[in-house]
Formats: sequence, C-alpha cells, structure tokens
Amino acid sequence: MAGEAPLVGIIMGSSSDWPTMRLAAEVLERFGVPYEARVVSAHRTPGLVTEYASTAAARGLKVIIAGAGGAAHLPGMTAAQTPLPVIGVPIQTKALQGLDSLLSIVQMPRGTPVATMAIGEAGAVNAAHFAVRLLGAEDAALRERVAAFMAEERDRVLGEQLA
Amino acid sequence: MAGEAPLVGIIMGSSSDWPTMRLAAEVLERFGVPYEARVVSAHRTPGLVTEYASTAAARGLKVIIAGAGGAAHLPGMTAAQTPLPVIGVPIQTKALQGLDSLLSIVQMPRGTPVATMAIGEAGAVNAAHFAVRLLGAEDAALRERVAAFMAEERDRVLGEQLA
Amino acid sequence: MAGEAPLVGIIMGSSSDWPTMRLAAEVLERFGVPYEARVVSAHRTPGLVTEYASTAAARGLKVIIAGAGGAAHLPGMTAAQTPLPVIGVPIQTKALQGLDSLLSIVQMPRGTPVATMAIGEAGAVNAAHFAVRLLGAEDAALRERVAAFMAEERDRVLGEQLA
Amino acid sequence: MAGEAPLVGIIMGSSSDWPTMRLAAEVLERFGVPYEARVVSAHRTPGLVTEYASTAAARGLKVIIAGAGGAAHLPGMTAAQTPLPVIGVPIQTKALQGLDSLLSIVQMPRGTPVATMAIGEAGAVNAAHFAVRLLGAEDAALRERVAAFMAEERDRVLGEQLA
Amino acid sequence: MAGEAPLVGIIMGSSSDWPTMRLAAEVLERFGVPYEARVVSAHRTPGLVTEYASTAAARGLKVIIAGAGGAAHLPGMTAAQTPLPVIGVPIQTKALQGLDSLLSIVQMPRGTPVATMAIGEAGAVNAAHFAVRLLGAEDAALRERVAAFMAEERDRVLGEQLA
Amino acid sequence: MAGEAPLVGIIMGSSSDWPTMRLAAEVLERFGVPYEARVVSAHRTPGLVTEYASTAAARGLKVIIAGAGGAAHLPGMTAAQTPLPVIGVPIQTKALQGLDSLLSIVQMPRGTPVATMAIGEAGAVNAAHFAVRLLGAEDAALRERVAAFMAEERDRVLGEQLA
Amino acid sequence: MAGEAPLVGIIMGSSSDWPTMRLAAEVLERFGVPYEARVVSAHRTPGLVTEYASTAAARGLKVIIAGAGGAAHLPGMTAAQTPLPVIGVPIQTKALQGLDSLLSIVQMPRGTPVATMAIGEAGAVNAAHFAVRLLGAEDAALRERVAAFMAEERDRVLGEQLA
Amino acid sequence: MAGEAPLVGIIMGSSSDWPTMRLAAEVLERFGVPYEARVVSAHRTPGLVTEYASTAAARGLKVIIAGAGGAAHLPGMTAAQTPLPVIGVPIQTKALQGLDSLLSIVQMPRGTPVATMAIGEAGAVNAAHFAVRLLGAEDAALRERVAAFMAEERDRVLGEQLA
Repeated sequence: MAGEAPLVGIIMGSSSDWPTMRLAAEVLERFGVPYEARVVSAHRTPGLVTEYASTAAARGLKVIIAGAGGAAHLPGMTAAQTPLPVIGVPIQTKALQGLDSLLSIVQMPRGTPVATMAIGEAGAVNAAHFAVRLLGAEDAALRERVAAFMAEERDRVLGEQLA
Repeated sequence: MAGEAPLVGIIMGSSSDWPTMRLAAEVLERFGVPYEARVVSAHRTPGLVTEYASTAAARGLKVIIAGAGGAAHLPGMTAAQTPLPVIGVPIQTKALQGLDSLLSIVQMPRGTPVATMAIGEAGAVNAAHFAVRLLGAEDAALRERVAAFMAEERDRVLGEQLA
Repeated sequence: MAGEAPLVGIIMGSSSDWPTMRLAAEVLERFGVPYEARVVSAHRTPGLVTEYASTAAARGLKVIIAGAGGAAHLPGMTAAQTPLPVIGVPIQTKALQGLDSLLSIVQMPRGTPVATMAIGEAGAVNAAHFAVRLLGAEDAALRERVAAFMAEERDRVLGEQLA
Repeated sequence: MAGEAPLVGIIMGSSSDWPTMRLAAEVLERFGVPYEARVVSAHRTPGLVTEYASTAAARGLKVIIAGAGGAAHLPGMTAAQTPLPVIGVPIQTKALQGLDSLLSIVQMPRGTPVATMAIGEAGAVNAAHFAVRLLGAEDAALRERVAAFMAEERDRVLGEQLA
Repeated sequence: MAGEAPLVGIIMGSSSDWPTMRLAAEVLERFGVPYEARVVSAHRTPGLVTEYASTAAARGLKVIIAGAGGAAHLPGMTAAQTPLPVIGVPIQTKALQGLDSLLSIVQMPRGTPVATMAIGEAGAVNAAHFAVRLLGAEDAALRERVAAFMAEERDRVLGEQLA
Repeated sequence: MAGEAPLVGIIMGSSSDWPTMRLAAEVLERFGVPYEARVVSAHRTPGLVTEYASTAAARGLKVIIAGAGGAAHLPGMTAAQTPLPVIGVPIQTKALQGLDSLLSIVQMPRGTPVATMAIGEAGAVNAAHFAVRLLGAEDAALRERVAAFMAEERDRVLGEQLA
Repeated sequence: MAGEAPLVGIIMGSSSDWPTMRLAAEVLERFGVPYEARVVSAHRTPGLVTEYASTAAARGLKVIIAGAGGAAHLPGMTAAQTPLPVIGVPIQTKALQGLDSLLSIVQMPRGTPVATMAIGEAGAVNAAHFAVRLLGAEDAALRERVAAFMAEERDRVLGEQLA
Repeated sequence: MAGEAPLVGIIMGSSSDWPTMRLAAEVLERFGVPYEARVVSAHRTPGLVTEYASTAAARGLKVIIAGAGGAAHLPGMTAAQTPLPVIGVPIQTKALQGLDSLLSIVQMPRGTPVATMAIGEAGAVNAAHFAVRLLGAEDAALRERVAAFMAEERDRVLGEQLA
C-alpha cells in the first residue's frame, strides 16, 4: 500500500505477536486498505500508547486494531485515549490458551468499548474483516468488495467436496 | 430521533433482552444518533434475520447491534448476511452467567466478524459507544462528541470523593 | 449405501471437519443406514442452510447430524428451519478445545432443541449411534441391531485382558 | 393422556428435580404425546435403573427423558441398558450451576449416546420438544404439529413490541 | 502378590486406562497389599458393575479403586452397589483434560460417597496410597509402613540439590 | 457419643465452616460413630495442624475429615503430617463457588492423598458416609449398617410420588 | 493518620469499589500505617494514572494498592509507570464473579509485576496485610506488629468453640 | 552473589520446579540481589517449611519467593509461619495448565497474604522483579536500577521492527 496514507493502525504488545497479527495485515492488503503496523506495548511503552492513540485520528487513521495476550491491556488503554474505534485481538497464550487474553480485552467498563474478536489467528483475520466493514459503512465501493468476498466464500463452500 | 432515518439497528432475540438492550438505545439518544429497535430471533424467525440483514444496507443502516443469550446465534447469523459491521452483546444468562453467550458470539470463524462487547449491561452500553465511534470515523462532528464525552467522564472521575 | 435414499443427513461447517465427522458416517455404514454428507456453512452459506433444512423432510431425511466448531451455529440454525430432529457435534477447537463449540450448541433456547453429543470424535461416533437408536424407535429390526451391538460391546469388554 | 400407553418416559434422580422436569411433561401434553413420569435414582436405586431401562422398549416406550444434577449418572446409565434413544437434561446445581451436570451427561464414551439439552428449565422444555421431533420422524401428523408450533412461535415473535 | 486374596480391587472403564491405573498397582505392590485389576465398564458392562460391586465385600475386598474418564460413571455406580469404600481416579481426557472426569466423579449426591483423587497419574498413585492408609486404620504394621514411606520421602526431599 | 473415644476427627479452618461441617457430625451420630470436632486453621494455627495430625493416630482416631474453603490447605497439610486417611470437604465460597476449594484440595501431589468430596453440604454429608464405609471395611456390623442405610434410601426413593 | 505523610497509596477504578477497598484502609489504620485513597481510572483518566504512578515514589509512597474489576487494567498500568511495588485487588464482578478481574490482573507479562490478591473483600484485606509485611521488611518494629497480629489470630482460633 | 548474605529466599516444592524457578534467580542476579534457593515441600517436609519460614527473618531474609503446582500449599504455609512478605509462583501443570496452582495460591483467607504472580515462567520472572521493587521501596539505588530496567525495556520495544 506504499504511497497511501494508512487508514488502519495495527499495533501489538510484542513482536512475538506478529505471526498472528500479520494475518490481519494480509486481509487488509487483499481489500486494498492501506495500513501501518508497529509494536506498542502497554506495559513497556505506556507513553507510546498515549502518543499513538491520542494522535491517531489527526494522523488520518480511521480505526485501530490492537492484539495482546495474557493481561492484555493494550486494546483497552488505546480505546481510553482515542475517540476512534478500537478492535481487540486476544492472542493465544501458553497456560490459559487465550481465555485470559479474551476476558482482559472484552470485559471493558461502560464508556470505553473494545470490539473483541475470537482468540488467536481467526481473531486477527476477523479484526481486519471488521475494519473493512467499518470503513465500508461510508464507502459503497468497499462495501461492494465485502459483498463480493462473501459471495466468493459462499461459492467456494458450495463447491467443496468431501474426500 | 423521530423523523430521521435510523443509522443503527438494534436487534435482540427476545423482548426479555430489552431491559439490557435499551441501555444501548439510551446512549445513542444521548449522542443524537437515530436508531431503530426490534425483536429478531435467529431460532424463531430465521427468515426475518435474512430479510433484516440483507436489506439493512439498502435501508440506510450503517451498523447493527445484536444482543443474544445462551447459544447466541443472532449476531453471527446477521453478520453472515450483511456486509455491514455487526456488534454483538452477550446477554447474561441464568446458569452460566453469560459465559455461554460470550463464547457463542466471539468465537466466530474467519471471514464473518462480530465485534463482541462485555457480558450484560456494560456490553449493551458499550455497543452503542462503539457504534458512535464507528460512525465518527467518517464524521468529525460526531468524533468530537465522543472526545467531549471522554473529557466529561475524565472530569467526573477527577471530582469523585471517597465517602 | 448406493441406490438407497438417505435417511440421515450429515452436514458440517467446513471440509476440515470431515476427519471428525466421517466417524459418524462409518457408524451409519456399519448399521446399514443410508446417509448423505456435505459441507453446509451457517456463516458462509446461510441460504444453503435454509434450503437444506427446509427441504430435508420432504426429501425423505429422518434426522440431521450437524458438526461445527467455535461459535458453532450450524446445528441450531438447522433446527430452527426444519421440524426434523437435529443432532449436534461440537468440533474440538484450537484455543478452547471445544468448550466454545459445546456451549454454542447445547445452550439452545426453549422451542428449538439440538441433541448435543460429546466434544470431538466420540461425539461424531455417538451422533450416529443416536441417529440409529432414533430410527430404531419405530424399526424393530434396527433396534435389534442396536441391542446386538450393545451385546458385542459387552462381550468385547468382558474379554479384555490387562497386559 | 389417561387411557393411552405412554410413548415417552420421563425419569429423574430425585423428586426435587420435578419442578424442572414437569416443564417437559407440559410440552408433551401440549403436543398430545402420552408419557409417564417417575423418580429413578442411579445412585439410590441402581436396580430400578436396570429394570426401567431394560424393559422400556418392551413396554412400548419410544424414547426416555432423564434429568439429573451434579455427578449426573442417570441418563448415561439408562442409555447403557436400553436400545432406545435417551435424552439428558442437566439440572442446575447450587455450587457449579449445572456445569457439572452438563459435563457428566454430555461427555459420554463411544457407543453409548445421550442426547444432551441445555442446563435447567430450557433443557427440560427442549427435551420434550426433541422427543416430539423424534417421534415425528415417522409420524407425519406429529411432524405437522411441530411445523405448526414453529410457525406460531415465528408469528408470536413477529408480533412482539418493545415497550 | 500371588497366593494372597486381594484386599483392593482396581477397576477401570477401558483397557486404555491401564497405563494410568497400573501406577496404582505398583504402589500397592510396594506396600505389599494384594490386589486384583480388571476392566469393568459402566456403559458397556453395567451388569458386571452390579455383580462386581455387590459381591466385592463377600469376596474379601476391603476397598475398590475405580478409574474413569469423561462422563465417568464407574466410581459412582460402584459406590451405589457396595457398602465398601470406593476411591475414584479421574482419567485425563483429550478435549477437557479431565475436568469433565473430575466433576463427574466428585460431585456425588448425599449418601453415595466417592473418595476422589487428582486428575491423571498423580490421582492413580494417590488412590493406592489412600487405600493403604485406609487399610492401615486398623492395621498398625501397615500404618507403620505408611509412616516409614513418609519419612523416606522427607529424607529424599531434604537431600535434593538444585543443579 | 459421650463416654466413647472418638474414631473420627472433624476439623475445619474456621467456625464459619461449622454450619456445613455439622452435617458430617449428624451423619456420624446417626451411625453411632464417636467423633470430635474442632477448629484447626492451616493459616492461623499451623502449629496446631502439626500437633493435631501427628498425634491423631496415637489418640485413637482412625480417620480425619477436614473442611476448608478458598486456598484450602487444611486437608492437605493434615494428610502430610499423619499416616491416617484424610477426607477433604471443599467449602462453597463467595466468588468462585467452591471451585477454588475443590482444586486446592483434590490436586494433591503423589504420595500425600486427600479423599475429596463434593463441594459444600453434599460433600460434608458424604465425608461422614465415606468415613463410616472406611471404618466398616474392618467392622462387619458397621458395614451392615451401611448396607441397611442403602436399602432404606432405595425404599424411600421407590416410594416417592411426583405431585 | 492525619499529619503523617502517606506510605501506601490506595487507588481504585471507581468509587463503587470503595466498599471493598476501604477494608484495606481499615487494616492499614489498625497497623498505624499512613495511607491515602483516591479514585484513579485507567480507562477514564489514563493521564491521571501516569501522573499518579510516575510521581508516587517522589511523593514518598513506598507501595501502591490498586483495586479494579472486569478488564482490570489499573494495577498493571500503574506498575508500568512506577518502580514501586504494586499490589492488585481483583474486584468481584456481576457476571463472572471476578474471574475476569483476577486473570486481567495476575497474568502480567515479564518485567511488569503485579502482586495479586484474592478476589473481593479478602483480597482487599490481604493487600493491606501484604503492604504492612512489605514495609516491615526494613522496619523491625512493624514486623513485630505483624508477628503480634499472627499470634493474636492464632490465639483467637485456639479459643473458638463450635456451638 | 558469593560472600553476601541472601536477602531473597527462593523455595519450591520439587526440584522439577527448578527449570521454572531458576528464571527468578537469573533476574535477581541481573539486579545484584543476593539470594538462596532450595527445595522445601509443604507435603513431604512440612517440618522444614516451619523451620524455614520461622527462622527466615532472623537469618536476614527480607522476602521469600515460593513456587508450587497443583494443590500448591507451599506459598500459603510459608506465609502462615513468617511475618515476611511471601511471593507465590503458580507452576504450570499437566492437566489443568496451572489454573489449579493459581487458585490454590491466590485465594488466601484474610490475614495471610500471598503476592501471586502469573502462571509459569512469566510468573517466576516477575516474582523476582517484584522482590527487587519490594527491596527498592527502602533502597533508592535499587529503585534506580528498576527505573533503568524499565527505560531499557521501553527503548528495546521502541526499536523493535516487524519482519
């Protein structure tokens, strides 16, 4: 998406989350939605969370996707410091398989919403799909691409054969 | 919001979910966002889900909020039949307190995202806040109202005294 | 079972569920019960769910076995669109091991029942066994085959030696 | 249903389960399906379980509904001693809210299926609905009544107003 | 322990449980307590459970160790048919890791106790240790061997070095 | 049971556990088994745990019943300091309903067994029933009383009527 | 503790947490440890968290106690912005009873520790006890008061009578 | 740290916990904090727990880190026998992945606090970080090292590139 200003910011607490979160990037590329991706840690770089979140709208971002695992504070702290919509991806964890990540992200208090996706890779993929639908709410051409994707998926499934 | 075409559709599986979901309506009213609300049951009126979801975009809706409890299929089945963004609210249940609703809504497969909120009343409130942020992504005035709300909340908390 | 009209329909959300669901097919073959198997996705082909479920009885099916994982909507959406009995198999998942699938299938609201089996392979096997018992309720010969199977199992266990 | 031989046997581990299980009886009465109901305890009357299960088919029963809570062994032990289909209802419990009952009923090993319903009252209601669908597999008139019930439910929901 | 009448009966639902349950046998051998071991399935051989449990006391057994997984009915059904003490071992399972086995064994209703051990191998080992303590309640020499074992364990730990 | 040396020691972490644990005492009284009951706290009186456990056998106790809630260490610490059999009762707790108590008691490491009962009142009742069975292993008269109790329970259930 | 500079800062996400957190204050008063208490919300006043945490050491605080419920980010975000030790109290919640709060607080990533206490009131009480022990690590007189408290508790339990 | 009296005691229930707990030792070495490490088992060497805990303060220890798995009693029993602060590390377990360890350690009753860390390796690392912060509460130089570590971590994350 070189040359275009990003509309979606993908952030994650650690570069070890990138193998999961890059699936979100791939979906955005498929839909031609420009994005940026970087590591922003709620616990190691709280100042960066503040800076990133509070300047996101002015920088032209329309939505932020935040992935985090365990006591996953990044999505919620981002939502607390921007008026933009924030989508949270619970990274799968070793001991509790991401149930900790899920509850830490989804159980937000009134007034600071995080749009939570499924645990792990499906969640990263769907965070991007949701971002595309969100952008498509005001962009009929993009919404058409969502509808086309849904039709392709339908046709693909209709053609599946059981070996 | 009489007289204005609704931008947000609030649907729920049963009128018994309304005491929870009306909290979403109240937040939308506070932000001046026109909405409609009705009962649409995935299990009792599957045809209505199809009709509602597949015509929503054409009717001018920009986002759908769906509340459901237990084997909560309404948000996912709506997302499967519209290119619009769908927000899911897990209704608290009697036996499993809404953990069943949460997992049934959030663990969606790749390609059909549902933006999941917290269990119960906080989730209904935040579904509306998220819808407002979503609409604000392309509406600077609305985004300003979100920022103003966040500032009011900040000031309210700063003024709280412990008895 | 070539040449015979199927009595049991086995459906699943994805061809990746077939390694689990084929165990159901194998049990039906053992009991000589004709079946059909195909991919029907609640989220990717909601129209196919409606078509499959609403025509199943007229096509001669007596019972439907539906396997699904995660936010497993297929069994419930099928039960919502047919008067036939529907048996649900919770597919084991990566993060939550199928607890999400189980709750999404079993916690159905009043009036739309899904007969839920164990998580994973045992559930697929037992879905077929239950279908056979269900058909045997009105078919004394088939019920005899169930009784014979139970006796064989008993004798097999009675003969087991601990190494 | 006086005068008619019962087609459905409703059993439960304790008379304290009757306030839940009578909801199953009420649904069967609504559909005109003759039934019997009695207390049969896996742990206090194991001999009665054997007798009840092993004679059920010969007595004309077509399906058995078994409700139990905690270490809920009744549905599984019944299924182990009859070739008839057995439907299990997990009774809600005090400490674990019925999650114990659910897992004890649903996680049956290969070859001995129990058709498990939701925890608590919804499960009792749906056990009867499933029994009716099961009997309707070979009884077109009954299947019509199921279809009529589904249409009534649809119309009832279509008519619901949010206060 | 050839030549001695068994005091402990080890039973399990399937020969696939033997790799876990043989750990119980090994502990009993270490303490010189004669035992027998066999497969007794609650669901495949309910009649054998009745026979085994109801004749155990007369055959000279003092305590029964029962291992089972999933909807683990064997320990409870054994306890329901013998006045002897029954110890339950929850076998680790594939999907739910034995949480299902644990709840199915431990949540017994009033009047039919099962002494439940830890999930998996530790539980099998401890079932035997508990059986030895139980027999030692009336056998001072055996109780001395338990005390000696505890002292050995203490000394072993006191001598452990961290590499 | 005045005048008789106690065979069973009932201990609990707090006098607030007595409303639950007295149900164990009542069962022992019914069976004529002499017992003693006192508060022994693992966390507040660790020295008393050591004294109580290490002298129990010499004082003539045959078995110890220990009730505790939350991070329930009393049963395990007692088992670690006596060669007698120890039965654990997980007290129901406010936040986690006793799941914490259950796991803290049942998941004991190899070599230090605790015979764990159900959460809450049923567990207290069954702890006493298990103690009676344990004592009956070497006391034919007591075992007869257990068998008689089981027969009474059977007859009571056989006589139950559903209102 | 008027007139003394506070050593412990008690913060909480909402004044609705004060009925729980004031129990911590009462324990500190009992031990004569000066403290301050105020509402600091991670989601509504993220700037205040930064200010509070980053100036706490310079203001003379030695330890911070933070209570929060649901997606409880306050303890972790405080620990991320101060080198002081932070103690977290998981507030009991409506739907998930505080399991969400517990996991959101305890599952912190490497390098940013939060000392987590029990869910609810016991956790608030123990947060203060832990703070006192922490301060006592370098204050022999305070450590003596802890030892005296432990002795009082021991004596109180030793004197308890079962009604 | 040869030649210096240890300030931190690291104890664990078994030498098999050392691969996890040595991560705590490594962090302490990095910060130059002298420590000792040894195996102390609550269940196999209860006397050693008493001796270790009750003499720890007199020996100059300022804080104790205790790791344990399953029915993890070591941290709580240590806290019950010393006025020093005790930090608990829930070791990951085979069947329940450390959820048992976590609840057994964190759910302590009022008056006996254990500062609980995350499950597994992150918890061991953070136990040491928390011990350093605790010691830094009265040691400005050490607190500076904590602040420096936090700055290094911040800079490290700021420099991370996504491949």
